[in-house]
Amino acid sequence: MNTIANTPAPPYYAVIFTSFLNEGTDDYTAVAEYALSLAKQQPGFLGYEGVRNGMGISVSYWDSLEAIRSWKNHPQHLALQKQEAHWYRQSKIRISRVERDY
Amino acid sequence: MNTIANTPAPPYYAVIFTSFLNEGTDDYTAVAEYALSLAKQQPGFLGYEGVRNGMGISVSYWDSLEAIRSWKNHPQHLALQKQEAHWYRQSKIRISRVERDY
Repeated sequence: MNTIANTPAPPYYAVIFTSFLNEGTDDYTAVAEYALSLAKQQPGFLGYEGVRNGMGISVSYWDSLEAIRSWKNHPQHLALQKQEAHWYRQSKIRISRVERDY
Repeated sequence: MNTIANTPAPPYYAVIFTSFLNEGTDDYTAVAEYALSLAKQQPGFLGYEGVRNGMGISVSYWDSLEAIRSWKNHPQHLALQKQEAHWYRQSKIRISRVERDY
């Protein structure tokens, strides 16, 4: 179930991933869910929020840039990224530092 | 039409707004669109991405914290925020500094 992530007090980091899928990506959901289940096991993972309705926006929260880098270069994640790449018609990743929340 | 925001090179700021609506908020869309049309006219506004599918995630991009503060305290926006408040069952705003994108 989608919920608002219960993140700790700032500062922490947010990876904002905005994307559009190509047609014919039926296996996308299962792989995306598997990638998320792996992400949740990584050190420094703080939370996740994701919505798709045509465009997709997902935000994952992390306690440090090192944690983001380790997850990006995790061998299983690298394999998934290769698999995912052809699914995205357009995508953008933004790495940001959360300074305030309320 | 929803598109990936064409933001400039970092650094810039992202306001990540995650929310759930209450039932019976039929006038929500019109007011949210009006608020966005006002935001687009503000100095320092760089772009917007928003998706709702049960949970809503919207991200607005700004060139400075001052621009975010000015928009937050804009008289028309304050009135809209008052009007919007009862629509949200749950919401969270995170102010973040985008350090890298690709």
